[in-house]
Amino acid sequence: MNIRTIDWKNNKIRLIDQTKLPGKFVYIDMVSLKSLWQAIKELKVRGAPALGAAAGLGMYLGIKDYPGSDWAGFSSKLNSVVRYIASSRPTARNLFWGIERISRVALENKNKSIAKIKQIILAEGKKIMQEDRASCRKIGEYGARLLKDKAKVLTICNAGILATIDYGTALGVIYSAQKQGKEIKVFSCETRPLLQGARLSTWELYKQGVDVTMIADNTAAFLMNNGEIDAVIAGADRIAANGDSANKIGTFNLAILAQYHRIPFYIAAPESTFDLRIKNGLEIKIEMRRKEEVVKLLLKKDIAPAGAKVLNPAFDITPQQLISGIITDYGIIRQPYSKNIRKILKES
Amino acid sequence: MNIRTIDWKNNKIRLIDQTKLPGKFVYIDMVSLKSLWQAIKELKVRGAPALGAAAGLGMYLGIKDYPGSDWAGFSSKLNSVVRYIASSRPTARNLFWGIERISRVALENKNKSIAKIKQIILAEGKKIMQEDRASCRKIGEYGARLLKDKAKVLTICNAGILATIDYGTALGVIYSAQKQGKEIKVFSCETRPLLQGARLSTWELYKQGVDVTMIADNTAAFLMNNGEIDAVIAGADRIAANGDSANKIGTFNLAILAQYHRIPFYIAAPESTFDLRIKNGLEIKIEMRRKEEVVKLLLKKDIAPAGAKVLNPAFDITPQQLISGIITDYGIIRQPYSKNIRKILKES
Repeated sequence: MNIRTIDWKNNKIRLIDQTKLPGKFVYIDMVSLKSLWQAIKELKVRGAPALGAAAGLGMYLGIKDYPGSDWAGFSSKLNSVVRYIASSRPTARNLFWGIERISRVALENKNKSIAKIKQIILAEGKKIMQEDRASCRKIGEYGARLLKDKAKVLTICNAGILATIDYGTALGVIYSAQKQGKEIKVFSCETRPLLQGARLSTWELYKQGVDVTMIADNTAAFLMNNGEIDAVIAGADRIAANGDSANKIGTFNLAILAQYHRIPFYIAAPESTFDLRIKNGLEIKIEMRRKEEVVKLLLKKDIAPAGAKVLNPAFDITPQQLISGIITDYGIIRQPYSKNIRKILKES
Repeated sequence: MNIRTIDWKNNKIRLIDQTKLPGKFVYIDMVSLKSLWQAIKELKVRGAPALGAAAGLGMYLGIKDYPGSDWAGFSSKLNSVVRYIASSRPTARNLFWGIERISRVALENKNKSIAKIKQIILAEGKKIMQEDRASCRKIGEYGARLLKDKAKVLTICNAGILATIDYGTALGVIYSAQKQGKEIKVFSCETRPLLQGARLSTWELYKQGVDVTMIADNTAAFLMNNGEIDAVIAGADRIAANGDSANKIGTFNLAILAQYHRIPFYIAAPESTFDLRIKNGLEIKIEMRRKEEVVKLLLKKDIAPAGAKVLNPAFDITPQQLISGIITDYGIIRQPYSKNIRKILKES
């Protein structure tokens, strides 16, 4: 199944409305910058590389009806569009990268007519999409080398087709490995609060014929401990010069759990996600979102496609070496537990 | 607010129907063993210590109408009740502990009349509840010593009033610290898939006037890294002789995250949760539950009480030392990242 997340069609931005998935697969057309801004804010379109393209095409939507023919006025309009798009979501590097790239191209061509500059901006927006399609396939090829046949991969959120133009970064690695004839088994963390892993990754992997099992985020350590995970691959929203990587809340958790289990943890991302101007993660601004996203579960539909596999263990085991103390009605038991549990319970 | 999770009233077991919380606070009365079995299976009553009491009282419900007066027939009936209750949920030690305790008391009094043995069984069921009330308060006292004034505690699932008779184990520690005049701030992991942390812990802490903030489970490492957590305290469903502790799925995750951040991780549980016959966690049977619990979010109501605080960061930062490789469109970047990111991006 060929899926195209974002495209330029009939002078409009055409998007898949990702808030309707997995229940409904619908396209929406954007003719105004305001509706695009709203779509970004409400996560109808999301995923760092897709946001880079949305920003590029959005710049064109923002300036295409500018009536003047003077650079100064046009440039001022361009700057207001930059600020407006930048106000939608703060964390994804690609969004800013897209804006900056369009601004730079406009500046480089400031001596041309405004009509010509508008054409150049649109062409640059289309070029961002073409480049993303190519770079995702390269990421896929490089990443697939890391996966053996029958590898079991854990992923979080959606760094797939739906986060890019049409292929994916973390999930692009899976698709490339599959094309090479490798059988890959994927576990998709549902990714609370907004369930992109359940709604989007499980959906697209299922549509692409990949063996995917959805899990609650809490199940990750349980699976790793059972030998069910060979690698973790996640996307990124922004990568600092030292490699610190911002991605969906919960990614950091998986990285620690993977290290504890000596499982490799990979980030997959295109060049446009790197931000070399910032030294490390401390300088990355984290978007705080509305409490209602966590508290309200108004979905009446299922959060994953009907046929998707799900693993639902009710409990896990915390190994004793991770427990600082066991607070009991007979006092606090400390290490070594094998000795002290028997001692305190016998004394009682 | 005084809340009693399970009680014996008018010849019936009276339970809070926990599947209705936080929206509705309703009691249900159980007159048959079958309805109690169903209530346990559907998590209307849950939490290891509460299940111990339910098992004790359930044994009485199961045998109270036995018409015969012979020990052999009564004993056979008792054994079938044991098997039936044991088939409800496999992981919580206290359930089996409750059954075994009643069976033992019956056996010890086998020379008495069946009518008398029935009375002894009911009295033992009530005694289990009394003992739990006392032991939770002791756990609270011991545990509270571990918490300083203004301590920030992370917890998962519900090991509170609603998991015991009326006080809690992990949350009992919070209540005791609060009684000592300490200001404790609690973060409650919502605990997917069944959201006991959101629906039950956030609700009861809020009702008891504790400063509680609900989070998606994915937010735990983010908070720890920001210095927002001084201790993690969880309950347990079964503790092996070596200290390995079974508890709600996701507890193991928190223990690893806590170790990484050098934050103490405590288990709080009464004696009845220990199972000294098993050596370690490998011998603990993990209950696997229905996929629908993960996939369907049919709740139209909020998952936490209306006034509850919620923290909803959309992203977190994975520190570079936890990343095995960054898969990019220019190849896979390995450690040291500060050098190699610049190198590979400059080369391109």
